[in-house]
Amino acid sequence: MASNALDLLCVNAIRFLSADAVQKANSGHPGAPMGDAPVVYTLWDRFLRHNPGNPAWPDRDRFVLSNGHASMLLYSMLHLTGYDLPMEQIKQFRQWGSMTPGHPERGVTPGVEVTTGPLGQGFANAVGMAIAEKMLAVRYNHPGHEIIDHRTYALVSDGDLQEGVASEAASLAGTLGLDRLIYFYDDNEISIEGDTDLSFREDVPARFRAYGWEVIGPIDGNDLEALDGAIRQAQAVHRKPTLVVVQTTIGFGAPNKAGTASAHGEPLGEEELAATREALGWNHGAFEVPDEVRDHMRRALDRGADAEADWNRRFKAYEAAYPEDAKTLRRDMAGELPADWDAGLDALYETLDGPIASRAVSGQALAAITERVDNLVGGSADLAPSTNTRVQGRGSFQAESYAGRNMHFGIREHAMGGIANGMAAHGGLIPYTATFLIFSDYMRPALRLAALSELHSIFVFTHDSIGLGEDGPTHQPISQLMSLRSIPGLTVIRPADAHETLEAWRFAVSHDRPVVLVLTRQALPPLRREGPALRRGGLDGASALTRGGYVLSGGGDDPDVVLIGTGSEVAIAQSAADLLAEGDVKARVVSMPSWELFDAQPLEYRDSVLPPSVRARVSVEAGASFGWERYVGLDGAMIGMNGYGASAPGPEVLAKFGFTAENVQTAALRILEKVR
Amino acid sequence: MASNALDLLCVNAIRFLSADAVQKANSGHPGAPMGDAPVVYTLWDRFLRHNPGNPAWPDRDRFVLSNGHASMLLYSMLHLTGYDLPMEQIKQFRQWGSMTPGHPERGVTPGVEVTTGPLGQGFANAVGMAIAEKMLAVRYNHPGHEIIDHRTYALVSDGDLQEGVASEAASLAGTLGLDRLIYFYDDNEISIEGDTDLSFREDVPARFRAYGWEVIGPIDGNDLEALDGAIRQAQAVHRKPTLVVVQTTIGFGAPNKAGTASAHGEPLGEEELAATREALGWNHGAFEVPDEVRDHMRRALDRGADAEADWNRRFKAYEAAYPEDAKTLRRDMAGELPADWDAGLDALYETLDGPIASRAVSGQALAAITERVDNLVGGSADLAPSTNTRVQGRGSFQAESYAGRNMHFGIREHAMGGIANGMAAHGGLIPYTATFLIFSDYMRPALRLAALSELHSIFVFTHDSIGLGEDGPTHQPISQLMSLRSIPGLTVIRPADAHETLEAWRFAVSHDRPVVLVLTRQALPPLRREGPALRRGGLDGASALTRGGYVLSGGGDDPDVVLIGTGSEVAIAQSAADLLAEGDVKARVVSMPSWELFDAQPLEYRDSVLPPSVRARVSVEAGASFGWERYVGLDGAMIGMNGYGASAPGPEVLAKFGFTAENVQTAALRILEKVR
Repeated sequence: MASNALDLLCVNAIRFLSADAVQKANSGHPGAPMGDAPVVYTLWDRFLRHNPGNPAWPDRDRFVLSNGHASMLLYSMLHLTGYDLPMEQIKQFRQWGSMTPGHPERGVTPGVEVTTGPLGQGFANAVGMAIAEKMLAVRYNHPGHEIIDHRTYALVSDGDLQEGVASEAASLAGTLGLDRLIYFYDDNEISIEGDTDLSFREDVPARFRAYGWEVIGPIDGNDLEALDGAIRQAQAVHRKPTLVVVQTTIGFGAPNKAGTASAHGEPLGEEELAATREALGWNHGAFEVPDEVRDHMRRALDRGADAEADWNRRFKAYEAAYPEDAKTLRRDMAGELPADWDAGLDALYETLDGPIASRAVSGQALAAITERVDNLVGGSADLAPSTNTRVQGRGSFQAESYAGRNMHFGIREHAMGGIANGMAAHGGLIPYTATFLIFSDYMRPALRLAALSELHSIFVFTHDSIGLGEDGPTHQPISQLMSLRSIPGLTVIRPADAHETLEAWRFAVSHDRPVVLVLTRQALPPLRREGPALRRGGLDGASALTRGGYVLSGGGDDPDVVLIGTGSEVAIAQSAADLLAEGDVKARVVSMPSWELFDAQPLEYRDSVLPPSVRARVSVEAGASFGWERYVGLDGAMIGMNGYGASAPGPEVLAKFGFTAENVQTAALRILEKVR
Repeated sequence: MASNALDLLCVNAIRFLSADAVQKANSGHPGAPMGDAPVVYTLWDRFLRHNPGNPAWPDRDRFVLSNGHASMLLYSMLHLTGYDLPMEQIKQFRQWGSMTPGHPERGVTPGVEVTTGPLGQGFANAVGMAIAEKMLAVRYNHPGHEIIDHRTYALVSDGDLQEGVASEAASLAGTLGLDRLIYFYDDNEISIEGDTDLSFREDVPARFRAYGWEVIGPIDGNDLEALDGAIRQAQAVHRKPTLVVVQTTIGFGAPNKAGTASAHGEPLGEEELAATREALGWNHGAFEVPDEVRDHMRRALDRGADAEADWNRRFKAYEAAYPEDAKTLRRDMAGELPADWDAGLDALYETLDGPIASRAVSGQALAAITERVDNLVGGSADLAPSTNTRVQGRGSFQAESYAGRNMHFGIREHAMGGIANGMAAHGGLIPYTATFLIFSDYMRPALRLAALSELHSIFVFTHDSIGLGEDGPTHQPISQLMSLRSIPGLTVIRPADAHETLEAWRFAVSHDRPVVLVLTRQALPPLRREGPALRRGGLDGASALTRGGYVLSGGGDDPDVVLIGTGSEVAIAQSAADLLAEGDVKARVVSMPSWELFDAQPLEYRDSVLPPSVRARVSVEAGASFGWERYVGLDGAMIGMNGYGASAPGPEVLAKFGFTAENVQTAALRILEKVR
């Protein structure tokens, strides 16, 4: 069979496998797979360096399907090229327990690099992957030993390009001159509401050129040789990312639906699917893949095995020449930490004894950790001086200096989150980000995807309450802390003093999933500790912080009232307990830096901290009180915020809104009266 | 005094008033006011049509300070041009209870159009204002009666332009051809982390041209005649928004800090402030405004009064020629509704009696309301067919047809929220937006600002739970519902059946603050109602829905257990109650469509719905159970989601995660055993 006839057969096999699966599921998106099949086929068949036999090969090219609704396109490619995704799973598309969910999910399907579907996220993730490649290449490669040498490809849609997160990521990718980053823009002129002309008339190529990208095309999405040429051209671009504009037809081949919005998000229907078979001359039944297609596409397995074997040989030579680097690279790619990685934190215990803001402690912790954990890298959305997240002596990651370790994300919180997730997904790095807590709202979709796909990104948020003062209600977080806690799979830690901050960082770096650190702008006094030691090993072999909540002081075994606080409010609770003690009320103070960690403890431990018999409970936290009923119940009292803050000096704002020892004392006495 | 000397005196008066206030507050941002003073002065002195004596004049030009941290620049302008903002308030900048908070807040300071500070929001708000002007002009103007005839101006910074929300809004503004929208880009080349070159190297003019904007400049920000010319040129542009690129110097005049990041976010310091006085030849003390400056700038009061008087005369003539239009315009600008505006909802009660998705009911309600409430306008982020938010027969709002009432926001949720807020702030319209609940995360900063600034925007979110089915975990909201509830000032309503949906819309339109409607993809059965009537007047003169929660059925006056549900889960609770009744357990079913409305009821009412003596309570909601402790307490049970969902048909997903009558029954029996 002539090459181009075989190619066309393969392309149509992808189209029909996708459309058949959508039809069988009676749900899904056939249009994009049918339109984009030639693009992805050409890329994977001729260029993509991957090994279907080992999706974890470190030096593989990365492929991101940013328009995740085209999931069947990706599943078809994974199945046909020999990944561990059997036809049975394709037939189970969108069914309970299958490996083929509605949108691609990292960790569920072998070969899926990142979880996509919410538009724009994959676009930003791929930028993060390209950054990771640059960082690792400059760190590990030596002359004649190009051990990190791969590219990042993504398929992006109109929807991706309309989302702000993609604009942010594109601008940064241009600024950083990320070649080896090649995007295919699926320019199909159709969106759900109709023609893209309804809402999207911009000149996309001109916009990307303005960002500093190379733009190739537009080319015909059915012309494999044109696609081939465009990819070659893109691979040769230096110091710029590339956008290949590909004109496609959504639902290509469907006689009555191609080029219309109705091909987008619902099955073609048996009748139209039959008509499409006729139109494209496809004489095969549902889920039937011609042998020559299977044989041709499965060559990816051998090619991949060869490519990885070659890399393994080269890695052996590298290991011989640079044994230390090889060891470190292996360790980092495996997500392991060096021995004694946190020794610097222990040293900081000795020096931190006065009042200090948790953001300042965090800065010291970060500096101490990065001395040994060189692959802990990140930066801020233009707030490094305020978030204390720039590490001295590690330079800036810039187009001219990929060896720099401090990133400058610009005022682009959302892309910052998506890029960090891409870096984490790439492997080899532990990314961190930083901004004010109020701006966590700007990056929420990325936070959620970090949690859903279990990525080890660390998100630092400072200026964590009305205590930030004069900037006022626009900048004072109220709902943010609680609403971050509501995201499953995210561990939120709000440390109460310098030592808790050190332990929070220890946890964040050693955990294997996303962690949010919530830190103050204002200074915090060191807490008086009468309960278990905070340092590692302090509580049954662990740090008390890793239990999420613990008895800090006071009240004895049989307290009258329990005061529960987090962050800056724990010291207030402790002062209130002292006032209560003067009146012979036994008040226990519980520091609760992390709800998620506390809730994960055995009931026995939780009951030991919050005795079920003690219903007189007061929570104090300078954020929305919403949710604290979990610990104080229907009988307790909550000191928190139920509206917005105010612009005035921080201590005054805190006092006016009731965050004082006297107010906590009064609340405790009132509640004692009520439950007694 | 020669005109240009007087101009310079005014500009310097603005600079020093701003810098002095920041110095006295010992907090704030002096750099942007000092750099941008000539730009805003030229605009306000020569072009801006406003009336400091009446900030509510409907046909005023709108001015938005998108870089809200430059608040002192705006406060200086408001004070000097004669708004009701006395010098005492300037001296109280950033102090408790003042009218001059850290960032501008709508409703706090006369003349502040929108609350800004979180970057990019003002950019999107101003696009919404320009849209509102177009919509009202095409609706109300008649030949010779240009009664709506104003412009929208905004000052935007590097930070604004980096934020994705601004990119989204800019692309849509270009698509819609919004002339009369003129932005000044404060191109000062400095960001907090240093030179903008660190993270922002794109070609801004080329990017905006790609969006379809006219770009003027760059011009020298200290050259008033160049600014004058640029504004004239911008005013003459047709069918395009305009970006005037202005090169400025942050902290202009400060000998040691001008042009550096240190001029951005902290007081200059007494010494540097004195040196700046010397450098700019400013011989006046702190807060001292030369008489000639005051006299000159206060002319805005007379000019404004004349302009409004002229408009009032023209409006009289308009009123004579088009009395109905005049009446409607007055009413809409006052935020009032026509008589019998909701008669269509009552009519729908008669026809809605079978199972139906709340999104579908919502579509019918919207169609019925807009028949009488013509200024209820909005649209979706490319999900109109799925969110049921396109109103038939009202056309599309497009560059070619400003008379269209359906908006197409594109896949730009964040800008959609910001634009709706701008439309609401403009006045005369009630905007609504629509997307899937999962994507509320994308527009959270806009939702929060709607709440903080008390804007009447209506946010529709459909596909509200794992019940959406096959699209899977990427699209199934878990934390979203609860985290929207955590935003103070936002009323969240999740109706349980068709009739509750009608009442939810009735509330949303008649309320004067932001409302979120949370709706299902799947059909809901009509509920069996044994409690108070849902329709208006049904419960003590009001609809039961406006109480937020009410007794739906079962259990009598002395129930054994209370089952509380929202949305699609209320029907499940009702079935569970039936099962429990078979075992002689008296189960009360409470429908709780809105926590905010319920919590605002008197204690007596709340206790009548949730009797304090009944501690056996079960909540059932297909979202994060997080937070339900508020109503079920430490003794209750919660049936909700504690992790992510799954891709499979909706009914199967709901059942697998425990949203069945049997599971609710079991939980109720278990809890009864525990508390008895």
